[in-house]
Parts: sequence; structure tokens; C-alpha cells
Amino acid sequence: MNTSALAYLENHMEQTLAELKELLAIPSISTETSAKADIQRAAVWLQEKLSRMGARDVRELDSSGNPVIFAELGEPGFSPTVLVYGHYDVQPPDPLEAWSSDPFVPVERGGQLYARGAADMKGQLMAVLAAASAVFQSGIPIHVKFLLEGEEEIGSGSLPEILRVYQDLLTADYALNPDAGMVRADLPTITYALRGAALFKLRITGPKHDVHSGLFGGAIPNPAHVLCEVLGRLHQPDGKVSLEGFYSRVKELDEEERAQLTRLPRDDGFYLEQTGSSMLWGEPGYTALERTTARPTLEINSLSAGFAGEGFKAVVPAEASATISARLVPDQDPEEVHSMLRVFLQETVPAGVNWDLAYMVGVRPSQTDLSSPGVRVMAEALQKVWGVEPVYQRVGGGIPVVSYLQEIMGMESILTGFCLPGDNLHGPDEKLDLDIWHKGIQALAGFFILLGSSKKEEDA
Amino acid sequence: MNTSALAYLENHMEQTLAELKELLAIPSISTETSAKADIQRAAVWLQEKLSRMGARDVRELDSSGNPVIFAELGEPGFSPTVLVYGHYDVQPPDPLEAWSSDPFVPVERGGQLYARGAADMKGQLMAVLAAASAVFQSGIPIHVKFLLEGEEEIGSGSLPEILRVYQDLLTADYALNPDAGMVRADLPTITYALRGAALFKLRITGPKHDVHSGLFGGAIPNPAHVLCEVLGRLHQPDGKVSLEGFYSRVKELDEEERAQLTRLPRDDGFYLEQTGSSMLWGEPGYTALERTTARPTLEINSLSAGFAGEGFKAVVPAEASATISARLVPDQDPEEVHSMLRVFLQETVPAGVNWDLAYMVGVRPSQTDLSSPGVRVMAEALQKVWGVEPVYQRVGGGIPVVSYLQEIMGMESILTGFCLPGDNLHGPDEKLDLDIWHKGIQALAGFFILLGSSKKEEDA
Repeated sequence: MNTSALAYLENHMEQTLAELKELLAIPSISTETSAKADIQRAAVWLQEKLSRMGARDVRELDSSGNPVIFAELGEPGFSPTVLVYGHYDVQPPDPLEAWSSDPFVPVERGGQLYARGAADMKGQLMAVLAAASAVFQSGIPIHVKFLLEGEEEIGSGSLPEILRVYQDLLTADYALNPDAGMVRADLPTITYALRGAALFKLRITGPKHDVHSGLFGGAIPNPAHVLCEVLGRLHQPDGKVSLEGFYSRVKELDEEERAQLTRLPRDDGFYLEQTGSSMLWGEPGYTALERTTARPTLEINSLSAGFAGEGFKAVVPAEASATISARLVPDQDPEEVHSMLRVFLQETVPAGVNWDLAYMVGVRPSQTDLSSPGVRVMAEALQKVWGVEPVYQRVGGGIPVVSYLQEIMGMESILTGFCLPGDNLHGPDEKLDLDIWHKGIQALAGFFILLGSSKKEEDA
Repeated sequence: MNTSALAYLENHMEQTLAELKELLAIPSISTETSAKADIQRAAVWLQEKLSRMGARDVRELDSSGNPVIFAELGEPGFSPTVLVYGHYDVQPPDPLEAWSSDPFVPVERGGQLYARGAADMKGQLMAVLAAASAVFQSGIPIHVKFLLEGEEEIGSGSLPEILRVYQDLLTADYALNPDAGMVRADLPTITYALRGAALFKLRITGPKHDVHSGLFGGAIPNPAHVLCEVLGRLHQPDGKVSLEGFYSRVKELDEEERAQLTRLPRDDGFYLEQTGSSMLWGEPGYTALERTTARPTLEINSLSAGFAGEGFKAVVPAEASATISARLVPDQDPEEVHSMLRVFLQETVPAGVNWDLAYMVGVRPSQTDLSSPGVRVMAEALQKVWGVEPVYQRVGGGIPVVSYLQEIMGMESILTGFCLPGDNLHGPDEKLDLDIWHKGIQALAGFFILLGSSKKEEDA
């Protein structure tokens, strides 16, 4: 690896860590509207940081939501161009009493940096800024655009509009998203597939208001009974989803990919341990890892009917409702799944009650081509630092921005990251392993350096 | 009817109404612990009233709950003795803004008296006090004991202990409970059967905490799925309850009683109108009235799992729960139904989750012999005032005190009352129809007078 860039990195590590602590001290909590001033402070801080790095055109893009920051670093004519994605907003720290120290006063203990956002993702964001800055300051050719948002923890709602309006400005060969984490400290990780999702709210309504179950129960349809009867048929006894056509567009895993997935430290025991469940369950013929990443699933997320507080209200509830989520894999389409659920309800909800299905969110599944030069360069950069070939993982959840970039701009994301399964993202005592973070910065710098060389090789 | 007692009644009607208004002005809300002082005030007010009537041994019985008042009126040697039951507590008035006037400032409008408790049951309680007082003051032989409690709206929790401790003091030939209402203003009503109840809370538990449905959904059993699958089988497709043995002890209605029930203004249209349901449903072969009063039923009263607030939490919930109530008819036993539900769960809950069933309340069904002299006298007294034979109804709900009196003391209750279906019990603008109330007082006085004569006839 280029020694001048590495030297620059090491010379600036102390400053990079100090700057990370500054950013972590800003409680930029996007879920709380009262934190708007802190969101603003974090956005301003990042623009100043980008300017100090030598970036051009540092500014906020037009948006009605939290500031979306754009900046450009390096030579416009240079290719490939990388669009670095990051978010500066964090989850709320509640419950505060579960923290060992103030979540917004970053503290180092035993090589770990504790603070809300240390892992998700201010630490990752500072890593990519430090890496790009070192490469740029060392005079190595590079062309990076930055797209930093403040609404990731609340669904990235402003991004689709931003991507449509600023499509030309943001265009790049790859998106680099360091928010995807690694599976174990000794296994650098590239995430290449995210499941899509379709979220629904189902309401079954019956009597005009809750009625006394002693006086009317057993004489009229009870929405809670109907909800149970209908949702009790969402799955077949063997664990398969019952919706007609649910699996018809699903791309089957090939044997090569199944073999590759076994390299991940994600055996059945992992799923039992992480959840505390006493056994596994699900679509037959697949491992738990496959079920949760490469196969589609359908879950009831909540149920609600009648009075669920202390005590007992003996009523036939006027309404029973559920939230339901489907997780989707290529080439499933959330709109199509919405139609399938609607057909299922038309066929299963009995007469005497009304039903209403709200389609709340639909996100397409996304997948990155593992053979693309960008992914190959990232793999090489990670291998150089860790000394082992990275593992490739599919992730069961979704990252909206990855789907939006693919859908709206046709741009694939290179997904990696340097937070660990035990770093308590969204939980108390969130932390960042500083040794892993240091390696991550080196690997990201390597990525930027190698990307230029790879291009030259291709040109040659 | 004895004219001196009637004259006494009429001469004191203005005073009786004024006293009712005094009692209604005390917000003796038993569901609110902050209303303890008002509960106390209402109890003191009643003791003073009983003393003014000429009652002896007026006192509070030993209880850790709200005051339970005892008093005795008339000749101890006289039989039959009647135990008058009443409660002086009321439901909270919320939502206050739905009332046309202050719920604790009684107001007359168009022959109706509006106030919380006017119908349930301070009005009924004052009616029976006025009737007994008039009969006693007119020198007609009578022996009445009073048992007035302040916890009816919260389940009469102190009564079983009171009945056990004070069994000898409270012994009587009949209990008279004027808290059962009438089915229509022109149809005086005797209630002769109340269903029992068994209330349960079922919890299904799975993962140790809510887990991300994108990361773990579809790989482990989901308690919300299991709850739906299990409760979806509580009823057979035709509407019968699925629990093995549920109907085995049920006394079938005979044709005579079925014919008698058709006199009640409770056709299918009544159930549709009262509930706003678009159709009826339930055990085949029975009318809605029969299903809700003479047949046992099983209802899901509430469902709860995951996050049911605004927004969407995509989790596999750690727990899913339901409250379930069975309504029971003679000779069903709540303990037996508890066992049946337990067997059902043992057979239907799949492996991989845990379940826990809490048996919260069990109340036996109760029934009063329609051919007993007490009931016959009440029927005669009602008929004399209204000019029509009373209707006899079964009620789908339960009144705990009626069950307790039957179970603990072997005492049958004569159940009647003078509130109407439109009197908004427990709702805003609760009211009492003063004309009906006046007739009710006359009928109750007639009951006390006739009871003595009936005894003499029997003795002769």
C-alpha cells in the first residue's frame, strides 16, 4: 500500500479520534424533534470537517427534512468515482440508566470507545473521511462525492426525492456504504445482498364500539377471533408462507453460494443463542441463515385488540389489528406481495366483519454483483489489512438508501463496515472497538488507492 | 295494596327524591383510589338514612375494603326475612365532556334525572329504602336486613369474606337485589338466571426479548403466530366452542322456557342494532338471545403482542398474550372449564414456545327458582303496578354478589330493577326515568306487604 498515505493516516490518528469524540458529543437524535438544534450542529460540524479536508462544493442539498450534505473531493475527471454514503443521526440513548457512562460523553475503556453512535455510524463515517482525506492529502488521484444524511434512523425519508432531484450531481460508479458491519473481529466482511420489505397494518372491525362480552359475546362475529383465524393461516404447518405465488419469483440459491455462506459464523447455534429461542422453525430445506437472508419470510410484528392494560375488560372488541412484515429477496416485488396478501384476505376473512389493509412501506430487495471491480478492490483492501479473505454475507434486514440508490440511480453499493455484533447498536453502552476501527481506516484508504490502480490496469 | 303504606310513600316522594339527589351528589367512585373520602361520605350518609328510617344495629361490618353497611329493620321474629342488597359506589364519569351536565349535580330534564349512579344503582337503592321505610312506618309487619357495599363496580372483592364471617347475621329467606333492570318501560322484569364466568390470561413466550424480524424472523417460532394459530382453533367453523367437554354439563333449555323467552323484546334485530354488527354469528340451533343467556360462550377479549403504538416496530415479539372469558350456564363449573382450556393448550401449542395460563376469576352460574314464593310475590307486586305479567329474563353477564350468596349462603336472589336499556349505565348522561322509578317504589312496597300476607297464607 502507498506508504505516504499510510504515514499520513498514522500521523493523524490522534486527531481523527479527537474529532470523532467531538462529533459523538453532539446528541443528533433524529427520532426526537426536540433535538433539531443538535442535528443542525452535527451537520455544520461535518461541513466544516469536509472543508478542512479540502473538499469542494460543500453544501446542504435542498430538502424539507434534516440537512443532507454534499461535498466533492479530488479530481472530477478521475474514474472510478465513489459516492460515499453516511448518516450523522443516532438512535435515542434510552434507557439512560442502563448506560455505564454518559452516552454523549465519549469514554475509552479497555480499547473500546463508548458513546451513542460510536458504532452506528459516526465511527464508520469518521473512518471513511479519514481514509479519503489521507489518500487525497498524499496526492494520490481520487474522486469521491459525499452524501451524508440525518434521517437514517427514521427511515431515510428525504432521500428518494434528493436522489431524483440531484441525480446528475450524485452520479458515480459505485456507492460506498460503511454502515454494514462485520460478522466477527477476525473476519472482514462484505455485504452483498439486503432483503426488501413490505410492511402492512391489518384492521378487522366488527361492532360499532366495544360491547359487553357477557351480553353480546357469542352472538356476533368477534374481530379478535377473526384476526386469529385469518393470521393463523398465514403459514402452512411446515412453516412455508401460505400466500399464493409468494415464492414464484424467488431466485434459488445455487450450490456455490450455499457453500460460500457456510464460511460465515452463523450456524443454527448462533440463532438460538442470539434470540434465546429454544428451537428453530421455518421454511423446510434451508438453514436458519438461509431462511433469514436468502429466503423470503412473513412475520406478525404486533397484535392489538380490546383492553390490554392491567385488569380485565370483558368486551367483544370493536377492532382487532396486526402489523405484518414480509422480507423479500430478488426478484420479489413488494407491490406484488401486497396484492397476494390482499387476495389471501379476500379468501379467508369471513362475512360479518370488515377489513382494511394499509400498505405502509415497500422496499425492493437489493444485491451487489460480487464480481464487479469495486467489490474485488474492497476485498483486496480488506484482505491486505486482516490477512484473510473477507467473508461475503447477505443481510436479512434492509438499508433503505441501498435500495433507493439501486432503484432510482441504478447504482450498486459496496457494503462493508467495522462494527461488531457485540457493539450494542441501538442499545445501551454502544461502543466501537478502536483497534478494529484503526484497521478499518487502513482498509478504506487501501480501497481508495487500489481503486485508482485497478482503473489504470483496466485502461492499460 | 295497603293504603296507609301507599299514602306514606306518596307523602314522602318529594323527600325521597331530594334524598336521592343528595346521595347522587357524592362522587363515590370506587375505581379511583383518590375518591376514598367520597366513598366514606356516601357510607356515612347511608347509615344516617337507615337510622332515620328506624333501622337497628346500623354499622359497618369488618372489612379491609370500602365500608360494607349492615342494618336491620322490623320485627326479628317475622318471616320471611329479606336481605336487601345494594351498592353505593359508581363508575367514573369519564369522558366528562360527553355529559350534557355535571354528572355529580343531579338535574331533572323531561321527567328524567341525570347523574352518575342515577340508574346504577343509587336510584334503585333509594327506591328499596323508601319502600321498606313506608311499609315499616305504616306498622305493617316486615323484617328486612340491609347489606350495602361500595365495591360492586370493582368486582365486590370484599363480599365473599364478609358473607363467610357474618353468615349468621346476614341469614334470610331471600335476597332482594334491585340492580337487574327491566327490558322495556312497559315490561316489568324479573331476572332469574345469570351466567357464570371464567376469566383467563394466556401468555405465549418465545425469544428472550423482542428481536429484529429482518434478522431473525422466519428462523424461530414467533409467539404472535402461535397465539393466532392456537386461538384460531377455539371455535369450530360452525361457531361451536372447541374445548373437549365444554357442553357436557350444560342444562338444555326446554320448550316451555324457550317459548317464555320469546316474550322478551330481544329478537335478532335487537342484537344487530345494539352492537352495530352486520350479521349474527354463534352456536348453531339457538337464537342470539339464547346464545347469550342460556348457552355458554367463549370470547377473546383482548390481544397484545409487540409494539402497537404509532409507527411500526419490525420485531418478532418476545411475548404474545390474550385475555379470554368463558360465560357459563348451569351446571358448568369454572374450575372444570379452566382444566378444559389447559388440555386444549397442551394439545395445540406447538414446541418451541412456552405458555402460561392465569386463571383470574371464576364465578359460578346462578339461577333462581321461578316457583319460589318470593318470586311469585314479586311477580304479583309488579303486575299490580304495571298491569301486565312481568317478563322473566336470563342475563348473559354475571353479578358476583348473586353467585356469592348462592354459593356461600345457599341464598337465592330475587332480581328486578327499574332502570331501562337506554339509561346509559356506565356511560355519559346516565339517567333515571322518574315515572318508572316511582312505579318501582310502589312495586317494592307491594312486595314487602304481600310477602307478609303470603307467609300468613302458607301458615294458615
